[in-house]
Amino acid sequence: MIVELISVGTEILMGNIVNTNSAYLAEQCAGLGFSLYYMTTVGDNEERLLQTIKTAKERSDIVILSGGLGPTMDDMTKEMVAKACGLELVEDEDCKQHIKEYFEKRKLHHEITENNWKQAQIPEGAIVLDNPNGTANGIIVQAQQCHLILLPGPPNELKPLFEQAVIPYLKTLQDASFYTAMIKISGIGESYVEDKLSDLIQGQTNPTIAPYAKEGEVHIRVTAKGANEQEAKQLVSPTVDEIRNRIGDAIFTEEEAVTLEQQVIALLEKHGLTLCTVESCTGGLLSGRLVNVVGASTVLKQGFVTYSNEAKQKLVNVKAETLQQYGAVSHQTAKEMAVEGSRVSNCDVAISITGIAGPDGGSKEKPVGLVYIGCCINDHVWTKEFRFTGNRSKIRESSVANALTLLRYHILEQYEGGFQADK
Amino acid sequence: MIVELISVGTEILMGNIVNTNSAYLAEQCAGLGFSLYYMTTVGDNEERLLQTIKTAKERSDIVILSGGLGPTMDDMTKEMVAKACGLELVEDEDCKQHIKEYFEKRKLHHEITENNWKQAQIPEGAIVLDNPNGTANGIIVQAQQCHLILLPGPPNELKPLFEQAVIPYLKTLQDASFYTAMIKISGIGESYVEDKLSDLIQGQTNPTIAPYAKEGEVHIRVTAKGANEQEAKQLVSPTVDEIRNRIGDAIFTEEEAVTLEQQVIALLEKHGLTLCTVESCTGGLLSGRLVNVVGASTVLKQGFVTYSNEAKQKLVNVKAETLQQYGAVSHQTAKEMAVEGSRVSNCDVAISITGIAGPDGGSKEKPVGLVYIGCCINDHVWTKEFRFTGNRSKIRESSVANALTLLRYHILEQYEGGFQADK
Repeated sequence: MIVELISVGTEILMGNIVNTNSAYLAEQCAGLGFSLYYMTTVGDNEERLLQTIKTAKERSDIVILSGGLGPTMDDMTKEMVAKACGLELVEDEDCKQHIKEYFEKRKLHHEITENNWKQAQIPEGAIVLDNPNGTANGIIVQAQQCHLILLPGPPNELKPLFEQAVIPYLKTLQDASFYTAMIKISGIGESYVEDKLSDLIQGQTNPTIAPYAKEGEVHIRVTAKGANEQEAKQLVSPTVDEIRNRIGDAIFTEEEAVTLEQQVIALLEKHGLTLCTVESCTGGLLSGRLVNVVGASTVLKQGFVTYSNEAKQKLVNVKAETLQQYGAVSHQTAKEMAVEGSRVSNCDVAISITGIAGPDGGSKEKPVGLVYIGCCINDHVWTKEFRFTGNRSKIRESSVANALTLLRYHILEQYEGGFQADK
Repeated sequence: MIVELISVGTEILMGNIVNTNSAYLAEQCAGLGFSLYYMTTVGDNEERLLQTIKTAKERSDIVILSGGLGPTMDDMTKEMVAKACGLELVEDEDCKQHIKEYFEKRKLHHEITENNWKQAQIPEGAIVLDNPNGTANGIIVQAQQCHLILLPGPPNELKPLFEQAVIPYLKTLQDASFYTAMIKISGIGESYVEDKLSDLIQGQTNPTIAPYAKEGEVHIRVTAKGANEQEAKQLVSPTVDEIRNRIGDAIFTEEEAVTLEQQVIALLEKHGLTLCTVESCTGGLLSGRLVNVVGASTVLKQGFVTYSNEAKQKLVNVKAETLQQYGAVSHQTAKEMAVEGSRVSNCDVAISITGIAGPDGGSKEKPVGLVYIGCCINDHVWTKEFRFTGNRSKIRESSVANALTLLRYHILEQYEGGFQADK
């Protein structure tokens, strides 16, 4: 089945935001075995949006639209979809209730304005997808052999809606079964992974193998098509086994929804270990990412943001001599941050990060991107030097990803008899 | 003049890469005052690419294509542009020389293959733009009132080419000047802002007024067209004044590149105040966001992640009785976290966050989304209750955005004689 995406919003055309929804939806469609032929972005303009919807409706079986479902006058996706399909807009009682509850729950201090009720209008006969994260519900319109799926623009609303309501719907439209296995890898680069798997990737037909580079991770999607799910699953299996053999323990999960931080928390929990973070250049991003994990509190007891030298000395007893002799960005400082972090917090494990995120503060010997990560597990301590590239935000993200990878690596090594990079 | 963008590449349709070129080109076009109406992504498929080019050529004055200029069979942007314009491809001597030199300079160990010479073919009469960073030169084709600009896909080739060669070309095509003002607001919702400005928005012609909802913020772009930049700027000015009058101090900046965390850091710095963060449910995200700001270290001295009750007691002296009587998520705990955070860290200002980010841990009296933010400035202390909706990650992001807003609000109130929400 042919899919196409339409992103609606002048803010995308103005370059105010990078359209990450499209990449997300494209990857999801590939995983579901749909062929995506076009992605179009169009502004908040009646005539052009209407024309774009009409064209898409003619040439594709499924059109996924994102954005333009808000309460303002600019938002007109629903209106133009209704027009393109020759449908009336009608007020939906459930939608009205949804908006009312959303405002009540938030105790929003201002009144529900007339604008907000606009969000309760839907094209007649449409399916409403409940959006727990915002006032704009998702909508599915079936018209003249085409399925039009309308989703709100904010990624934190679009993604859960897509996963909970749209995927099950799309699966009912498929003429064959598809099965996708996900393999997530951290600590090795995309080109290295591709090199290791080049013969598999080149020879691919069914299943297909698609590597995706993510921040500090490589995700490999193996997708097969079969008469039924069972058959598709069986087709995927030998390829996944082969990839597992070649990549080894750098694979941290084979589950789509599982994240690296979840695996780290689970591993610490499994071995009854408590954790403390000590962060300088990342300023809390590592602990912030660990707290993404529901139930992280059983493991992550506390965190220190020791952004200043003073805080490094006061909170985790980094010696003044160490700072003076080696500098705040050094193996020695990372080591003391980890060792003392663990001692002061009375946690089994401490992980520390100190580095130069830039754009200022670099020198010839210590350039921007130089980062040291320290890891202390029950009095054993390791430090590792990294040289990251990119801007401030990229360097900080890479630091966090590598800290998680290193933490996983050392726990596997200490508690599970090693880490097999290449089996 | 009407511009549209076409991104060519099956890898974008597979979701393998996020299309950052489009956002970059869109912003550049907006800055130049061009109206961008459509952005389309299409795969490496002759028929669909040709059709996309033909449609674009009909409806736009300028079409910028990126990708598909490589040496492989998949790459067919040039071929399809030539076909759409009824032009022949001819070998260009300069292009041939460019490829030869590129290979020699890089001492590429493999031979120049037949494929590579494909890159020396250009549509007859086209302008060649020299690409110092790769073998694929940029190309401009003028055909039937439309300017087609072909650029290589890799961002590190596309961007310098665009800035050095395309911008000067585009400037020769402009018939008017444009000026854009940006107004960024925090602490009030998009529909509330729109309500306040509805008459302005409804009556807009020149300048135009476009509000964008961001996480915890609303951005308003006011754009005017004039005979020259000075005139365009003058046209924007009264509208900006009027918006400023109506929205008041909830406007935290009028600069495109300035962020809320930057303004908070700048405000603290201005009044010589140091800051400490004490975070529970956000787990370091607030300090992590503050450290986005280059030079945050002059203000943000340290941060505590007190995710466990134990850490709240140990690090910032929250009383056991308080936790027992009122719970970790309460006005009282937020207050003690802020007051003691400030005292323990010896900072002038402390900001605390404690809440239930879910999905577990909620109850009828204390539902998921209940968050308390505390702020202590030189022994004055305030706490505020919030009820956020959405998933775990949304609740945590909202908490951070509101903490920054609250911090700004209280500093303005304490040090600058108040905060005018509605002037």
